[in-house]
Parts: sequence; structure tokens; C-alpha cells
Amino acid sequence: MRLWPLSALPEIAPGDDLAGMLAERGRSEGMAPGDVLIVAHKVVSKAEGRVVTLEQVDAGPAARELAEQTGKDPALCELILSESRRIVRRRNGTVICETHHGFVCANAGIDSSNALPGTVILLPVDPDASARRLQASVGAALGGRIGVVITDTHGRAFRRGLVNIAIGVAGFVPVIDHRGGKDRHGRVLIGTDQAIADELAAASGLYMGKDSGTPAVVASGVTTIPAPGAASELVRDPAHDLFRT
Amino acid sequence: MRLWPLSALPEIAPGDDLAGMLAERGRSEGMAPGDVLIVAHKVVSKAEGRVVTLEQVDAGPAARELAEQTGKDPALCELILSESRRIVRRRNGTVICETHHGFVCANAGIDSSNALPGTVILLPVDPDASARRLQASVGAALGGRIGVVITDTHGRAFRRGLVNIAIGVAGFVPVIDHRGGKDRHGRVLIGTDQAIADELAAASGLYMGKDSGTPAVVASGVTTIPAPGAASELVRDPAHDLFRT
Repeated sequence: MRLWPLSALPEIAPGDDLAGMLAERGRSEGMAPGDVLIVAHKVVSKAEGRVVTLEQVDAGPAARELAEQTGKDPALCELILSESRRIVRRRNGTVICETHHGFVCANAGIDSSNALPGTVILLPVDPDASARRLQASVGAALGGRIGVVITDTHGRAFRRGLVNIAIGVAGFVPVIDHRGGKDRHGRVLIGTDQAIADELAAASGLYMGKDSGTPAVVASGVTTIPAPGAASELVRDPAHDLFRT
Repeated sequence: MRLWPLSALPEIAPGDDLAGMLAERGRSEGMAPGDVLIVAHKVVSKAEGRVVTLEQVDAGPAARELAEQTGKDPALCELILSESRRIVRRRNGTVICETHHGFVCANAGIDSSNALPGTVILLPVDPDASARRLQASVGAALGGRIGVVITDTHGRAFRRGLVNIAIGVAGFVPVIDHRGGKDRHGRVLIGTDQAIADELAAASGLYMGKDSGTPAVVASGVTTIPAPGAASELVRDPAHDLFRT
């Protein structure tokens, strides 16, 4: 299996044809059907206009209260609240949110690194739809099925350090159910769902350093199962989640 | 970056020279200094004798109570309790433990898949020490520094599906601190610790299907920072953990 970066993209602005840029790079740089294209959400968000100038945000009372509790910018707090279903945990300056997509992450996934000064980048409104658009465009350029993963960089409960996870998926099964399969001793496997889309996302992090300017990485030689796919399949049902509440 | 499997190992028994087998494979199959060797803990545990026959375990009162609550084998419950500092969450048949290492995972990391019938596999007593031994042996065979990651397959809070994480590390910095670095707009980065050892572990999962018989994967072309390293650095300080308690 090989992981390799597509060449750097220019600074992406709202309305830019990101799918076209990635299709052109994929075709000319050697992507092939069966490959998985892994894209940092920041360029997707920028192309989709999910960039907000903090000065233009009016902070309401709840946001001002959160700002007071956390020491964060009130405008940022307004965005955190509007991007969240609810706050899962808050302590000092840390705010862990459940986003409208169901992702549990700090600050509702709002990011200021790699944003222009005074602006922040929100998550795509529907990252699975974004992944499907990229898949259609790049797949057409290559003349075959590819997989797409859109990533964000998340902290984890219990563990130090950040890893990339899949927030958008298209073209393959993101969680492979090995149940009913057998191990090498013939014992039937139970409870062995493999989160392959998150494995691919995490692997891409080996290239996407925060400052690397490498927002698109290709995985070649990975076996995936063709399917429409969606990162929403990676969100644990709250009823079966022992830590969400 | 290239990820590639070492050739399959024979069934490993207590006392087997796993380090020697991996060194021989690494040397003859093309590993080079700078590579990272990623090994599933199961073969490490087996070589270190961390295999228990359930019939030989006496379940005490607490284990029998846990067995009644969960429907699990009382002997398995005895092992879960003895391998844990404490139970973090319990619901129906799910027992999330904090192991003596500080890892938070189901059943204290005790695994019955790929174990001989009637037996279970415990985590290594000191996976960082195990990683250092593998590093010394394989590094000597290759004539240079390598990195080693020992993995386990864990569920996650909030997300469906399992991914491999690093439970043992040797030879490199497992969490890279990008703080103080700058993004492409010159903005100073904050809060951007990259859990590179977990990224490598997750990537290895793309090869280590539960039934693949591929317990050792090599990552070539990854930039790591030389250091003694330890997976204990990946355990979040409970005082800063919003979900452990």
C-alpha cells in the first residue's frame, strides 16, 4: 500500500472549483481507479464558502456567557453554539461539542489555523455530500470508481494528541463488519467492526502536518468494498454510546 | 510513504524468539534504518507467555458478580478485574476498563480472537519494554535506528468501529508538539499535538484484518523524530481528561 500526496493547491477561495483541481491533479499525477483520495476538510470548507469573518458575527447572550466562562472570543462562541446540537463537556477553555452532524469534537470543529487572520473555518454543512461531489468529479476524470475521505483533526477521550478522522466518505464501506468471519483457529469473530475510513484518515495525517500545505493524499493499493458510503455510518448511535452523555 | 507486511509468522508460543524472527524477516525482506515496525500485540503477548487457560482461573466473588451482571465467563471476569485499575463504564455486556497501563478499553484489552480455544490473550505487562526489546534486536540486524509500535485494536467513544492504537512505542517521539510552529499564514499554532504513533498504528490496521495472519507491518518513508519514546506518553493525564471519570 502506498500513500502519496497530490501536489500543493493554491490558496482556495469560496466558489473555487476544488473538484476540478483535484481531478486534474489526480489524472496527471497518476491516480487510478480503486484509489482512495483523502482530503483535509479545510480546502473543502473554503471552496464551499464556510469561512467566517469574526468581526461580522453578533454574539448573543449565550455566546457572551460562554465567552466569559472560557476566555474565548464572543464571536467564536456564537459560531460554536450555532454549529452545535449541544455542549457535551466544558472545562476552563475547552468546549467539547456535538455538532449538527453528530461529531463530538472541540469547538464544534471550528478552526482558526490555516485561516486568514480574523477569520475561522467551519466544517462543511454536509461533508458526505461534499465527498460525493469530489468522488463524481475525480472518478469521471480517471474513468473509474474511487473512494473519497474528507478528514478533520480531532482530539480523543483518554489519549493525548490529535489524529485525523473521517467526517465525509463516498464510494466505499467505511466500517467493515467482520462478524461471522473466522479467525485462524476457526473461531467465529464477534465485535470486530473495522473503521477503515478512520484508518485511512489517520494514515493521511502522516502527510498532513498542520503547516505542510498538503491537503490531499492518495492511498493506492487499499482493498475497499464498493458502496455509496457515508461518514454518518461512523457516528456511534447515542443510545449505544457510554460516553456521549 | 509505503506500508508493507512482513511475511507471516508461525503460530507463536511462550518463549519463542519473536524479536529474532522479526529481525530475520526485516533484514531479508528489505527493512531499512528509519523504518517503523508495527506489530500486533497478540504475537508479543504470546511470546511473553501472556496467554491464560480460562479453566485454570479461579473466579472470586467480585468476578462472579461481574459475570452475573454481564453474562460473561466468570474466569474471564476475574482476569478483567485483575488486569484493571478500575471499571470506567459498564452497561449490559460491555465493560470498559482502565488497565494498569492507563489504557481505557473494553475488557481490559483481553482478547479471545486468534487465541486457541479455551484460552485468552492478555496485554503485555509492559508494552513499552516489549517495544524496546524489538527495537534493539531488529535495529541491530539492520545496523541502524528503527521505530517500533506495538498495537491493540480499540473501540472509541463517540465513533463506531475499531481502530488500532499504539500501546507500546520505542525509538521515536510518539506525540509531536507543533505548538509554536506557524501555519502558512504565519499564525502561531496552538493545541496541535500530532499523535503520530497512533496514526501509524491506525494505518497498520489496513493490513491487520482480524483474520489476515499479518501481525507485522513496516512503514517506510515516514519522518519520525529520534527519541527513546513510550506509548505511556499517549495516555492523557486523568486530571486533564474530561471523559475518564
